[in-house]
Amino acid sequence: MTLDEKVMQLQCIWSGKSALQDPDGSFSPDKASRRLPHGLGMLARPCERQVDVGLDVIGDTGRDVHRDAADTARYSGAVQRWAREHTRLGIPLLLHEEALHGYAARGATSFPQAIALASSFDPALVTEVFGVAAAEMRVRGANLALAPVVDVARDPRWGRIEETFGEDPLLCAEIGKAAVRGFSGDTLPLARGKVLATLKHFAAYGQPESGTNTGPVSVGERVLREEFLAPFEDVLAATKAVAVMPAYNEIDGIPAHGHDWLLNRVLRGEWRFDGIVVGDYGGVGNLANRFKVAADLEQAAAMALAAGVDVDTPDARAFQKLAEGVRAGRIDIALVDQAVARVLRVKFEAGLFEMADADPAAADAATATPAAIALARKAAARCAVLLRNEGGLLPLGADKVGRMLVLGTHARDTPIGGYSGVPRKVVSVLEGLQEEGVRAGFPVAYAEGVRLTEQRIWGQDPINFTPPEVNRRLIAEAVEAARAADTIVMVLGDNEMTAREAWSERHLGDRLGLDLLGQQNALAQAIFDLGKPTVVLLLNGRPLSVNLLARRATALIEGWYMGQETGHAVADLLFGRATPGGKLPVTIARDAGQLPVHYRTKVGARRGYLDGPVEPLYPFGFGLSYTRFAIGAPQLDRSSIRAGESVRVRVEVANVGTREGDEVVQLYLSPESGPVTRATLALRAFHRVTLAPGQRRTVAFTLGPRDFHAWDRAMRRQPAPGTYQVRAGASSVQLASAPLRVLPAA
Amino acid sequence: MTLDEKVMQLQCIWSGKSALQDPDGSFSPDKASRRLPHGLGMLARPCERQVDVGLDVIGDTGRDVHRDAADTARYSGAVQRWAREHTRLGIPLLLHEEALHGYAARGATSFPQAIALASSFDPALVTEVFGVAAAEMRVRGANLALAPVVDVARDPRWGRIEETFGEDPLLCAEIGKAAVRGFSGDTLPLARGKVLATLKHFAAYGQPESGTNTGPVSVGERVLREEFLAPFEDVLAATKAVAVMPAYNEIDGIPAHGHDWLLNRVLRGEWRFDGIVVGDYGGVGNLANRFKVAADLEQAAAMALAAGVDVDTPDARAFQKLAEGVRAGRIDIALVDQAVARVLRVKFEAGLFEMADADPAAADAATATPAAIALARKAAARCAVLLRNEGGLLPLGADKVGRMLVLGTHARDTPIGGYSGVPRKVVSVLEGLQEEGVRAGFPVAYAEGVRLTEQRIWGQDPINFTPPEVNRRLIAEAVEAARAADTIVMVLGDNEMTAREAWSERHLGDRLGLDLLGQQNALAQAIFDLGKPTVVLLLNGRPLSVNLLARRATALIEGWYMGQETGHAVADLLFGRATPGGKLPVTIARDAGQLPVHYRTKVGARRGYLDGPVEPLYPFGFGLSYTRFAIGAPQLDRSSIRAGESVRVRVEVANVGTREGDEVVQLYLSPESGPVTRATLALRAFHRVTLAPGQRRTVAFTLGPRDFHAWDRAMRRQPAPGTYQVRAGASSVQLASAPLRVLPAA
Repeated sequence: MTLDEKVMQLQCIWSGKSALQDPDGSFSPDKASRRLPHGLGMLARPCERQVDVGLDVIGDTGRDVHRDAADTARYSGAVQRWAREHTRLGIPLLLHEEALHGYAARGATSFPQAIALASSFDPALVTEVFGVAAAEMRVRGANLALAPVVDVARDPRWGRIEETFGEDPLLCAEIGKAAVRGFSGDTLPLARGKVLATLKHFAAYGQPESGTNTGPVSVGERVLREEFLAPFEDVLAATKAVAVMPAYNEIDGIPAHGHDWLLNRVLRGEWRFDGIVVGDYGGVGNLANRFKVAADLEQAAAMALAAGVDVDTPDARAFQKLAEGVRAGRIDIALVDQAVARVLRVKFEAGLFEMADADPAAADAATATPAAIALARKAAARCAVLLRNEGGLLPLGADKVGRMLVLGTHARDTPIGGYSGVPRKVVSVLEGLQEEGVRAGFPVAYAEGVRLTEQRIWGQDPINFTPPEVNRRLIAEAVEAARAADTIVMVLGDNEMTAREAWSERHLGDRLGLDLLGQQNALAQAIFDLGKPTVVLLLNGRPLSVNLLARRATALIEGWYMGQETGHAVADLLFGRATPGGKLPVTIARDAGQLPVHYRTKVGARRGYLDGPVEPLYPFGFGLSYTRFAIGAPQLDRSSIRAGESVRVRVEVANVGTREGDEVVQLYLSPESGPVTRATLALRAFHRVTLAPGQRRTVAFTLGPRDFHAWDRAMRRQPAPGTYQVRAGASSVQLASAPLRVLPAA
Repeated sequence: MTLDEKVMQLQCIWSGKSALQDPDGSFSPDKASRRLPHGLGMLARPCERQVDVGLDVIGDTGRDVHRDAADTARYSGAVQRWAREHTRLGIPLLLHEEALHGYAARGATSFPQAIALASSFDPALVTEVFGVAAAEMRVRGANLALAPVVDVARDPRWGRIEETFGEDPLLCAEIGKAAVRGFSGDTLPLARGKVLATLKHFAAYGQPESGTNTGPVSVGERVLREEFLAPFEDVLAATKAVAVMPAYNEIDGIPAHGHDWLLNRVLRGEWRFDGIVVGDYGGVGNLANRFKVAADLEQAAAMALAAGVDVDTPDARAFQKLAEGVRAGRIDIALVDQAVARVLRVKFEAGLFEMADADPAAADAATATPAAIALARKAAARCAVLLRNEGGLLPLGADKVGRMLVLGTHARDTPIGGYSGVPRKVVSVLEGLQEEGVRAGFPVAYAEGVRLTEQRIWGQDPINFTPPEVNRRLIAEAVEAARAADTIVMVLGDNEMTAREAWSERHLGDRLGLDLLGQQNALAQAIFDLGKPTVVLLLNGRPLSVNLLARRATALIEGWYMGQETGHAVADLLFGRATPGGKLPVTIARDAGQLPVHYRTKVGARRGYLDGPVEPLYPFGFGLSYTRFAIGAPQLDRSSIRAGESVRVRVEVANVGTREGDEVVQLYLSPESGPVTRATLALRAFHRVTLAPGQRRTVAFTLGPRDFHAWDRAMRRQPAPGTYQVRAGASSVQLASAPLRVLPAA
């Protein structure tokens, strides 16, 4: 390979795509060959026709920037044919797409948002979901997903918390493994319908200072390893994930894209990762442009390459400088060779050289199939978390509903969260309940009640908050309508503008307050004051401090964003065809003044506040059902083990209520001593079971050597003998315990 | 020395003191010899007669637990005579006392709280203040102050923030140096009237997770060094501080009292500290009792000793186990010898072996002298920060005041903050203004207006917040009184129960909200609505989010706690005998949702919030005057230097107003590039000047090699060539700049 051919393998094209196209949007091999005489390693977002903003948006902007399935497949196929037939070496491209909760493309199936998927505590479901995403990508020719996000999230102010699997390293790891299995299967080369997966954002991106996106993270190495690195390590060890994306933040003074220790020593050295490190959009250039730890883009490229970044996205503005740097002797060719070898190995191992081109004729029919939509519906129901159900209001009896009133802008205009595509059809809560009403014979009325913003497009600015006077009028109308209603369903929360990725100081997405925005509490208060049965459904991106709802709603469901089948799933849940069984993957704070709030506290934390409770509004792992469960104390097969051994734990769970339902049996560990302090409570396993009334089951877990380790004072992962409490139960605060002694190895 | 004699030198007696006393409270050499046949190294708080609670309180508890000056001197003298004449080796004791803002003892002079002293930006004043504290301690025989606190404070929820010198490492260092010079002078052996000083709490105690006291700190090594360790290093390098106290917190999994890296490698190794490390009360035992990184107290003692702790306070419950551990071969005698050598060296070098006993006859007259009280008055005025002064209301003209109304419980019952003694006389705001009224001929009325708590004793529980209905009545009365007033002075803020050290889950002192507690805003609102000239004086321990006051008070003064001369100083300030010149040593947040909030942000921090401002309510370094100043751009003697060289900076400041006043010229540095990211703005020097109207002065600063260093990727402190902006001005947001290039060393 020539130097130019090598460095082109480390580059990506995104905003330059239009220059490779004919006026009708089709890929032009001639133009490509003229602009890219040395080939190209990666192309961004084949599903986009047009990229005309600095950072493009996903979601319906009113501009026709997205290709449909057939067009994408045609385009991808043409790209790969060009690479195969018109470049000297014929190396196929990595074609990457976003797929945070389904393939983010026009027409593709949109599933519940990532934080909702984590709420399912159901890895098998998550694998199914990302299996659909993979198939829908692959049929269009994309072969690399920039997902999943396995950041441990520790700040609800942060607008990207919805993209994560929550606050717990083990949950992030387990859901992350399930996602990668869905994307990539368990084998390389990729099987039919599978794509490569990217773990992001490496690392500690989920705890930005002051809650604002990309904020610096000052974290000690031990906590970094225990909390933030653990999911990455675990997912990589258990799956075929071949790509890792560094984070936009810095850690203790070193930007992740130039973090040699993080990428070379830990990721590649300790963990033996031999895949590729794909820079986040602009992340390499930021070393010079933002962080100023490099003098210019060439230095930034050199620094990132040396630190272990292999591909610069979206447009390789820094890695474009590599060839010149090598020719001038400023950059060691060995670093380029090493990165190229990694890229090529991934392409070979993934089977890209043998992969058939996408089939435009098949693409459309393979997208958003009835099975995919049914899965979206099932997933949305399984992800929902029931937070409150006074007097067993839910499930509603169709015969007892009477006149139903549905309230809330987002009951009609359904938010589905950041990094969404444009699904063919999103079923709103109102539509779902209207269908139900028609079927069951109760009338469904609607009043807007409250509006958050005057438009709802993820990437658009400014955020035009709905004026209070408009909402005052809507609230008055809603109260009037509610007087005539027997049952009220109120949709409150966020939308894609009030919780989103903050790209810059001019494109904000983070919050300083955690209560419902705007006049939502005023509507809720007015409706609650009528004293009617009121179900509140939260559609939202961040865990909100919904103190009023928690006190006064008759029933409260945390739906997060529920995807394109929102309305059907809500009807399933409200009328008992589905029983809520999701659990909170994040602690819900009462107030931003409690932050950071998560369940993995250490000794000495959270002594209390003199002006309010230190306990959160809802704890990690919490969620109700329409039935009731009894979970027994954990039964250990031995009361002591030696370091290096395992212990079997059996937990009995019984449905002691009158309906079928799901419980998530959660197993935690509390170290009672050790060489260093650790979290006083740590989730180590969980299992979601479905039980008929009266049915009981024994769930078996194994706690192995790794569960009893600590990062000792020399920062070696070592067995930590001592006393532990094994705890089992239905949430992080409903636990029964059994002691276990771990003795030093024989 | 025998083993027992050695380990006794590492021990302290506090709660056991009563067993060494005769019934009349005098020290009994006979009892001491029986209980302490091998001598004793340290005795806690000789000013206390009686210690009958787990952790005693300082402040007036209604129990007569404090000795007066003569009694303390008698007691201390007897202790030292016993050590000299009745122990085999005749080694004098370290007698330690609290002296956070003056000697915390009955009758001693109480100065403004620590955070107020930092607000003075006046090291010479701080040296004077702690010179008085030292003299008042020494005349009673105490020889070791457990002060100053040089913790960099980063959380206003934390109840101990009032004990710090604020958020900036350089300010903490400069005020800390001044404090140590006040305590200890510049020479050892100690000169007449001087005592030893203890730097605390080592380290990173000022950023407890979630704002609750002793919370864990996860901080990277670079930020730890740059922000939290810097003041300790700087003060130790510049002063005769001989003691360092570890913090109660853990850092990244290692409790400070067992932190070998912190105490042995950094403190003693890198910094060459050869003094003593004195454990915080119970801190050694906590290794076993709380953190459980040691199995029992003997292991805790061994761990702390090995990590570098030399003395266990207050009662050596862990170090009591040392002798047995050594005899059984579990603890290396060399570690004991090393600690004993340090204790003895400090005692020798300090001159304790030659020191005259305290003179009971002189003690009383040497305490709270007229000069000390005058200094307390001057200090209180110099520490106050003027935040707002609409229409130049202040200073008040005695002829224009008309009928003055004073409001607020704490206008009459003066809070003076945590770690206070019981001064002979505290002058309240009301008394100060009444005196003024008598002198100047205007009437002064009083209404309570609002009450925070039903009692005001630092150590007492529970906190009985005043019921809202009581305050509603008080507010109504106040509004009624205010109708008849021409000028209103309203005292709001905290007291020693609402901002204090949280000792445990049952003794709380931290807050989750930052607004004024209770019904204070309701009073303020009602008074502001009358539209009368209203001066609000804040007496408070933590920086409060006083949004309402900042918007509507005619004048607003941050007084913190002002000490025993509060009322006189307030009168001096309000009537222009003193002009406010203090500056904020901490950023004041608008809301807890902005936390952490400090000015030393890094690139990428604080992008903004979509639901509120990211800017704080008041920035670091801010403070107004009754006159106006113009500060010129910094003038550098060269536009570029080589690493290792210095640059002289001249800043011209002019009083362009019509009254004499003080300005604090602040010099900051902004690195524009470097090997790692650093704070985008860092205070490097400051100078408080007094200027007559029209007067101008050029203030000269030197920026030396250390100012242009960074902790590089290998964590070495290295010169960091590149471009810097040198910035000068009146606060962290009112700055003019000049660029400086730092070239690599020749």
